Amino acid sequence: MIPSVFSRKFAKLVNMSQTALIILAPGAEEMEFVIAADVLRRAGIKVTVAGLKDSEPVKCSRDVVIVPDTSLAKAAGDKFDVVVLPGGLGGSNAMGESAAVGDLLRAQESGGGLIAAICAAPTVLAKHGIATGKSLTSYPSMKDKLVDKYCYVDDKSVVKDGNLITSRGPGTAYDFALKIAEELTGLEKVKEVAKGLLLSYN
Amino acid sequence: MIPSVFSRKFAKLVNMSQTALIILAPGAEEMEFVIAADVLRRAGIKVTVAGLKDSEPVKCSRDVVIVPDTSLAKAAGDKFDVVVLPGGLGGSNAMGESAAVGDLLRAQESGGGLIAAICAAPTVLAKHGIATGKSLTSYPSMKDKLVDKYCYVDDKSVVKDGNLITSRGPGTAYDFALKIAEELTGLEKVKEVAKGLLLSYN
Repeated sequence: MIPSVFSRKFAKLVNMSQTALIILAPGAEEMEFVIAADVLRRAGIKVTVAGLKDSEPVKCSRDVVIVPDTSLAKAAGDKFDVVVLPGGLGGSNAMGESAAVGDLLRAQESGGGLIAAICAAPTVLAKHGIATGKSLTSYPSMKDKLVDKYCYVDDKSVVKDGNLITSRGPGTAYDFALKIAEELTGLEKVKEVAKGLLLSYN
Repeated sequence: MIPSVFSRKFAKLVNMSQTALIILAPGAEEMEFVIAADVLRRAGIKVTVAGLKDSEPVKCSRDVVIVPDTSLAKAAGDKFDVVVLPGGLGGSNAMGESAAVGDLLRAQESGGGLIAAICAAPTVLAKHGIATGKSLTSYPSMKDKLVDKYCYVDDKSVVKDGNLITSRGPGTAYDFALKIAEELTGLEKVKEVAKGLLLSYN
């Protein structure tokens, strides 16, 4: 099955389980990573956490150590409804330099799957030439690296343009995760998840 | 050095590094855990993540696996300016049943150290008879287990009463972590941390 906006809508209608791949690179921002993984799982999405290099524990930007479910090399053979890139400068630089991440993102883009990036991670898209020309946002200090290739948005927490969802930083990470979940599972489910988190979502 | 409000104020004045112990139990709410660890480290606080049982990887409530820095048994010999209890029903039940957690919390309370608990974790205080009679809050569904022993607050995200800081759930976890950091490092430092997170803090 090629992921696309049509298959996502069909899956929502028949309540099929949706899938997400989150790449975990050394130096990832741990809050942005864990909020995405946790919120998507609360929404019933099957989340795979793939270590960029292998499946060994990954030290994040503030020294929290997280064990991936698998490696990117093993996970990359499967199709996912969304590929999520958490921020953190070290993690984003590592993903930007990874040929495997470039291949995965190009396949995701050409197959019509969702791509979601937060904080410094939109620079990974720029490095690999993904979604060029689309509207996006990022951590404010990353703007200079993005304005030439994208239509940069300063004044929104989350920006969706076609199959691309981007967001700004730790303080917008819940909105980012809920927006991804809305796209995959629908507004009613996401409102229920937000309520459980003691947040509101419109 | 016995932690107390006086030593905390002195440490703030001379810019001494403050210390936090965060207990990581199986079934902990991973967002509440990681937001506390990350935000406190951003504020310059020396954070020790102690596994409840040992220092092996811990599976959290939504299957994120986190490696502690050490075990509670090893960490419990040291003094900490704050002991932080993340929520999650499984994690809170495990901490409530742990004699080692009870001993640690009693020593922290009698030494005048800060204790901070979020979501389901205020029930750990009730189980071990800590801070009885004080004002606190929790995840709404935990209220029934707390109203008899505490002055329960429904309408605030974070409640501070003396050396006790409590909060409600994932959606209030940033406010919770920032309030702990404010107590240990002062308002100006916390405003700077919040700005980096793209949040505001007053």
